Formats: sequence, structure tokens, C-alpha cells
Amino acid sequence: MTSDRLPRVTQDDVEEIKQFIRSYVGSSGCDGVVIGQSGGIDSAVTTKLAVDALGADHVHTIFMPSNVTPDSDRVSTESMAKSWGTGYEIINITEAVDKLEEALGGGLSKLDRGNLSARCRMAILYSRAKSMNRIVLGTSNQSELMMGYFTKFGDGACDALPLVNMYKTNVRQLARLIGVPDDIIAKPPTAGLWEGQTDEEEMGISYVMLDQILYGLEQERTDREIASITGLPIANVQSIRARVVAMSHKRLPASRPGKVI
Amino acid sequence: MTSDRLPRVTQDDVEEIKQFIRSYVGSSGCDGVVIGQSGGIDSAVTTKLAVDALGADHVHTIFMPSNVTPDSDRVSTESMAKSWGTGYEIINITEAVDKLEEALGGGLSKLDRGNLSARCRMAILYSRAKSMNRIVLGTSNQSELMMGYFTKFGDGACDALPLVNMYKTNVRQLARLIGVPDDIIAKPPTAGLWEGQTDEEEMGISYVMLDQILYGLEQERTDREIASITGLPIANVQSIRARVVAMSHKRLPASRPGKVI
Repeated sequence: MTSDRLPRVTQDDVEEIKQFIRSYVGSSGCDGVVIGQSGGIDSAVTTKLAVDALGADHVHTIFMPSNVTPDSDRVSTESMAKSWGTGYEIINITEAVDKLEEALGGGLSKLDRGNLSARCRMAILYSRAKSMNRIVLGTSNQSELMMGYFTKFGDGACDALPLVNMYKTNVRQLARLIGVPDDIIAKPPTAGLWEGQTDEEEMGISYVMLDQILYGLEQERTDREIASITGLPIANVQSIRARVVAMSHKRLPASRPGKVI
Repeated sequence: MTSDRLPRVTQDDVEEIKQFIRSYVGSSGCDGVVIGQSGGIDSAVTTKLAVDALGADHVHTIFMPSNVTPDSDRVSTESMAKSWGTGYEIINITEAVDKLEEALGGGLSKLDRGNLSARCRMAILYSRAKSMNRIVLGTSNQSELMMGYFTKFGDGACDALPLVNMYKTNVRQLARLIGVPDDIIAKPPTAGLWEGQTDEEEMGISYVMLDQILYGLEQERTDREIASITGLPIANVQSIRARVVAMSHKRLPASRPGKVI
């Protein structure tokens, strides 16, 4: 069934994702999953789904603060781990990122430092996953994936992507359905790359609007149709489409000549 | 044309790869490429192809030694950069890797430390590529890719893969065709993850034999056919096939429920 407006998440969607996590972990022969925790809604939802799918003993969470991470994120990730019974670890990445920045000659922009941080977190997650014989569960949602709003080989790097079909709007609905704490749902979304950053300010559009546009693109509607359904200026629709196309390299395997192996 | 035996590389193959690099860089609107240099044949061949395709001004090479890297690798990478006229930089990763290992609690195996090192190198290449408005050219060959003989999101991470269709055996032929120095071609292949490591010892098979098996798999031959063509015991063929299948997750996008975006 297609619809003009982004459909709401149902209990069937929840079951499908849990089944996906169970069957992926089962077929890979590993002991469970490792998930990076930011204190945001995407990692909270991914973690709760994994707990419901696998049981808390098979879910290990790692909070990886840097010098720009507020302590409130530690408090909320720790509290979720306690309440759901998952493994929990704090690994501070500041010194490793400092050394990488130093090696590069210093003077990185906030964004470049944010990218380095995301890649250090990936390296830590994979190292821990390997020592625990687990896979890394990614926390990116469909809005971020389509917009390329993630660090390539950083937070975008994982073995499995349970939220790949969930726009940010859907992730919020999902969070309510599965019992993620209200304060996590209410937080303004941020990639946490620097202090005070919010996704919506950085992208210049609210997720509610953005997701309607992205859903229209997914439904292969024209810019004019999307503008008419959403009531947004066609220029906004065009610029989002251009970004989704330009960012496709972040979602695809490396470009290659000739055949695919 | 198919053949029982792995076909030799021709000048047409060289032209196809150069054309691929030119068109990929052209269509991405960037100023050229960044390539990690190890002192081995794959990065040397990738670099020389990029120089021939784009001109040396558009090729920046970075040598990223760790505490287990022999100084002879610095000498050979520096000498190629001088002779071909590419950009060249040395960025030592030891301290960054130390800090990551420390953050993880220490005591990593050689292999785990090697994986951390490969991921630090990726982070450095991407940071430099971004500041120079360039793309990262990967250096993995088809043998490594099929065997999963690389670090996921480490040396396996790149924007484009020129050698994706070239088995190690082909890379050696290619090296001779395009004028890579003899001493680089003659070195025993190593991932450089620890001192004295060689690929063939670690994988337990020579590249000449391995590539014949991999080529048979690519041609969709049965284990029995491959054993008969190569003269190898069928058990060897079976174990290579099992590894190629088991490593497919390292070559594919993250697993996901339902539709692909």
C-alpha cells in the first residue's frame, strides 16, 4: 500500500526488525551485538530492539564520549543500560582523537574533528566486537542514510542496519511503541560532533518536513508532486533531491571498473 | 572469452583502469586522489596507474608507518614518490594506535592491533582527502577482496577500487607493464600488520595457487573441476570456497531488513 503521507510505524514493523536482528545474529554464528551509545534516540531504539530480540545478555553497549560530549549523555546511557540490563562500558576517545589530529598537523575544523571522532568510535566498536565474538549493529536511520548525514566509515560503518527503513519520524513512533524513556525521545536530535550542534539547524530543515520530502522521493514522485503534497516550496524539494543524489556514494560500495565480485 | 587458466593482463586492461580512474575523478568533481602507501606492490601499482591517468599533480601519497613498519618501506615509498613526482607525506600512527589500545584496556593481540592500525590509516586518509578535496583510492586486489584478507573499514575502506578485477598474480603482471620498480615487485607480499608477517604464510597457500582456485570460483566451476584444472587436492579448493563465502559480509553493504535504499 502506498500513501501520500509517510505511514505510521506498526507493531508488525517492530516484529520484523526484531526478527531481522535475531536471524542475522543467528546466521552469523556470533554471541550477540555491540552498539555504540550516544544518548540519542537512534542508539536507544536500536538497543531496546536488540534487547527484545536477543535478550539483554547478548547486547553490549559502549558510550564513547569526547571532550565535547555533555555528561548528561553518560547519565542517560548508563540509566538505560541499568534498566534494560545490557552490558555497558565507557571508553573516552579524546586522547586518541588528539593524537590523530596531531599526526595530521593539527588545526582541524569542528567537522573534521567530528569525522575523526566517529571513525575512532568505529575502530573501538569493531575491536570490542571482535574480542567478544559479536557483530556491530548500526544505528543510522533512513533520513540520515538518504541525506548522507553520517561519517563514511565512521558511524555509518556496521555489520547490520536495523533502522534502514525507518525515517527519523518513524524512529520516534517506534521509540514510543517499544518503551524508550520519554526524555530520550524529547531530546533535540544531534550528531554530537560538537557542543550545541543540532541536526535540524545544521540541515536547515525540520525532520518532520524532511521526512515527507524523502518519502516522496522514495515513492518516485516528481518535485512538483512532492511540493504539492507537503506544501513546501519546490526549491526546497529540489535541493533535498540534489543532496540525496550527491550523497549516494556514502551508501554504495566503492566504485569499480567492470564486473562486481 | 573464458579460459581454464587465469588470463594474463593486457595493455587494454591497463587502459580500462586508467579510464576508470579518470572518469571517476572527473564525475566526482574533486581535484584528484589520495592513496595510502605501504611500500608494497598493490599501492605502488595503484599509484602509478593514477599518475598515468591523472598526472602526478593530482596524486597525493601518504606513508603511515607504525612501530612494526621497517624503515625500508619509507625508503621505497619516498623513492617512488620522487621518481613519479607525486605528493608525499609521512604520518606516523603509533601514538594514536597506542591511545586507542589504552582506551580499550590494553593487551590486544597482534591481529587486533593490526586492525586498529588499518582503521587509523583510513581515518587519516579520509581527513587528508577531505582537506584537499580529493577521493581515497583503495589498493585492494581481487585475491584479497575475495578472501576477505583486509580490515573491514580499514584498508578495505575507500571511494574507488581500481584493482577490484586484478588477482595478485595479475597485479604483478600489471606492475611490469606500467613500470613499477623491480624491487617492489620482488618483495614477499605482506599486510604489514606485524613484523615479519607474509600473506602466503598466514593464508597457508601461495598466491599463484590461490589465484587459480579463486579464478575457478569466479568462473563458477565445481570444486572437482577446479581441483582437476589446478592439480590441487579437492580439500584445499573446498576450504578456499568456504572462506570466500564466509567473508562475503566484508564485501557487501551492511545487512538490512526488507528493501534496499
